[in-house]
Amino acid sequence: MSKRWTILSFSFCGWKGGHPCNAPSHHDRIARIAGQKKVTRNVNMEKLRNGYLFPEIGTRQMVHMEKYPNAEVISLGIGDTTEPIPSVITKAMAEYALALSTREGYRGYGAEQGDKRLREAIAEKMYGNMGIQASEVFISDGAQCDIARLQMLFGSSMTIAVQDPTFPGYVDMSIIMGQTGEYDDKSNKYKGIEYLRCEPRNHFFPDFSEVPRTDIIFFCSPNNPTGQPASREQLKELVEVAKVNGSIIVYDSAYSSFISDDSPRSIYEIPGAKEVAIEISSFSKFAGFTGVRLGWAVVPSELSYSSGFPVLRDFDRIVCTSFNGASSVSQIGGLACLSDEGYEAIKDVISMYKANAKIIVDTFTSLGKEVYGGVNSPYAWVHFPGQKSWDVFTEILEETHIITVPGCGFGPGGEGFIRVGAFNSRECILEASRRLRSFFG
Amino acid sequence: MSKRWTILSFSFCGWKGGHPCNAPSHHDRIARIAGQKKVTRNVNMEKLRNGYLFPEIGTRQMVHMEKYPNAEVISLGIGDTTEPIPSVITKAMAEYALALSTREGYRGYGAEQGDKRLREAIAEKMYGNMGIQASEVFISDGAQCDIARLQMLFGSSMTIAVQDPTFPGYVDMSIIMGQTGEYDDKSNKYKGIEYLRCEPRNHFFPDFSEVPRTDIIFFCSPNNPTGQPASREQLKELVEVAKVNGSIIVYDSAYSSFISDDSPRSIYEIPGAKEVAIEISSFSKFAGFTGVRLGWAVVPSELSYSSGFPVLRDFDRIVCTSFNGASSVSQIGGLACLSDEGYEAIKDVISMYKANAKIIVDTFTSLGKEVYGGVNSPYAWVHFPGQKSWDVFTEILEETHIITVPGCGFGPGGEGFIRVGAFNSRECILEASRRLRSFFG
Repeated sequence: MSKRWTILSFSFCGWKGGHPCNAPSHHDRIARIAGQKKVTRNVNMEKLRNGYLFPEIGTRQMVHMEKYPNAEVISLGIGDTTEPIPSVITKAMAEYALALSTREGYRGYGAEQGDKRLREAIAEKMYGNMGIQASEVFISDGAQCDIARLQMLFGSSMTIAVQDPTFPGYVDMSIIMGQTGEYDDKSNKYKGIEYLRCEPRNHFFPDFSEVPRTDIIFFCSPNNPTGQPASREQLKELVEVAKVNGSIIVYDSAYSSFISDDSPRSIYEIPGAKEVAIEISSFSKFAGFTGVRLGWAVVPSELSYSSGFPVLRDFDRIVCTSFNGASSVSQIGGLACLSDEGYEAIKDVISMYKANAKIIVDTFTSLGKEVYGGVNSPYAWVHFPGQKSWDVFTEILEETHIITVPGCGFGPGGEGFIRVGAFNSRECILEASRRLRSFFG
Repeated sequence: MSKRWTILSFSFCGWKGGHPCNAPSHHDRIARIAGQKKVTRNVNMEKLRNGYLFPEIGTRQMVHMEKYPNAEVISLGIGDTTEPIPSVITKAMAEYALALSTREGYRGYGAEQGDKRLREAIAEKMYGNMGIQASEVFISDGAQCDIARLQMLFGSSMTIAVQDPTFPGYVDMSIIMGQTGEYDDKSNKYKGIEYLRCEPRNHFFPDFSEVPRTDIIFFCSPNNPTGQPASREQLKELVEVAKVNGSIIVYDSAYSSFISDDSPRSIYEIPGAKEVAIEISSFSKFAGFTGVRLGWAVVPSELSYSSGFPVLRDFDRIVCTSFNGASSVSQIGGLACLSDEGYEAIKDVISMYKANAKIIVDTFTSLGKEVYGGVNSPYAWVHFPGQKSWDVFTEILEETHIITVPGCGFGPGGEGFIRVGAFNSRECILEASRRLRSFFG
């Protein structure tokens, strides 16, 4: 910052005049300086280890397919939906798209916060009796993108806690935003992040008395990857912890539509949660919108900083400045999802994935494996005690041509597990089951 | 961070056991602590002044419409496209959307970096002979969103320069990322940002010898709001300045499709630019995709940090971690825009907006105003010497029911100007012209 701009040559800018750089010594000075002052890489980016989990798995899948060009690879890996979207939804999108070619139907920018009708529909359909207002719902292009925007909102000074294991986006965005220290090879953790161990012995709910307070608690339920939904009692404790410690919960309910027992589908089912929790969610797994891109965040008006300033106002500013709204076509699709007809049709697709998950759970259970999740979630969490996740991943891929996800990709607490997803056709799930039984049986 | 989690009550979590908190004194301690440790607001968010410009204008428009419910307000304000999208493009989107309901046509997640075909089409159609590879093109949901992602890439330690006036997103994201100091009420500038004054007397190109070096130079051409494209000679100087000073240019070419003279449409028309420049661009103004949401960023493989590490690899990581790709429906629309038929149809729409801009320029010129831009850009930049931009904005709105944009919203260098946009139907532009002639004439 101490140096003035240095300009190498002005042969082409005589029209401007006034540059103090015609002395012969100028070029010597330039030559000395040039190349010495390139931009330094962001130190936070340097802290990131390995590739981001899911692209890394994609790369390994491609390598495998090149090695075995005739193998029929079955992906139970990245949580990518496979079933067609009910036509009541795609018809709405198609009609809207076509109308963009008419003067009456053309629409340009929508509100950055999203289409008012969609905000209202989400408030009503997803949060019926929980007191969430449309003005507290922000439409987005997906939960992963909202994690990034929330981290921009929080800034580098925040301390965070995450479940261990959990979706890696929380940690990776925390690193990028500068909230963490370096990676510690011994613990496989980033310094400055509190890892809330969730495992069978504690019913996949952390013991908060064991870890320091943090400003933010990322909490995903049903958890990705363990497939476990938090119970009402557990969430009551979570809200209480946040309230007493002045923490903000970021509650990720992207898989809530898979819940079929009495576990809460939203953190706002817990009294008092509006004062301490943001919720992010998505149409991706709910409606097969992984490619269409649509999600939402709820920032209650009751949630405030220590000064009393509402978090909602800052999040609104972040959304208006760093985002320009989700695609209008996707939003129309979202509205159709929440129509009575759309909602019923979606439920059938979810039921089908849930039945897939049951097949996976039954398969591994019959093979004598400890299996968690897979009931209120499209993910089964399978334990291979004493083995390394990547080794299990590689062995299953080599022997059965099935893609899974290594548990260690979700945090050190995932080591020894793999995540097996139910997003595939019934035919592929049954074929995967046969292959797994044949290999492990 | 020094404190352990405090838990108020365990009546509901007896199943967990092991909490060291049953002593009566516990609740006293909680009561003392509770409320004292709420999360502190991000100091960077506190630095932001006023609302973000465009939502602020939207609010003022709404207030005006409530005040004059019968007035026919004409918006020449926010740069929102108004003309229908050619049907060859919307048909492609509609067909794709409908096919999502079929097993053959269903697609889930795409690559975070975008559809390979679209990356290739952009590399070929937009950068034909400039040596840009498809792997250097990242599909996005718009240029504003890419500015945010680029700022995440850069991090808080970078120093930045912006044209003054310019699109406010660069500065606002810089503040949010913590690159700046406080706002200085005297200069109307944020500390830590270099403002490159662009005004009639310097042909709207900054004198780089007058300002300190920065890591990043945001440069928008044709500039929003001045409507001025940089000439080839000016861009040669810009690239040279970046090269010698080791700066990275973020070149925003969102309005390049409006260029009809020999000004470069891309920074990569300048030899050597690939070593120093990122380019961001958009389908918003090019194809009327303001609501559909689609853009792209080019990060050349030659661009590296001082360590030699390629910027492209870090940007790829940012995209994979904070973003999940643009909507697949929008991307199919983008592909159709770049088909021969789509491209020709789009050109007609742009010509129509350009003819609108000429009407605006002619109107203000005939009224004796100094008018800039409006030739290679949809924006005319009108000077009202000695007046405040917001006063001019308010006066025009009150007297003619026309929305413009106050120049000071684009930086202190915009004071005394208003931006008048050509995005409207011919009928509305002609009516606006009549009203303006009547009021100022």
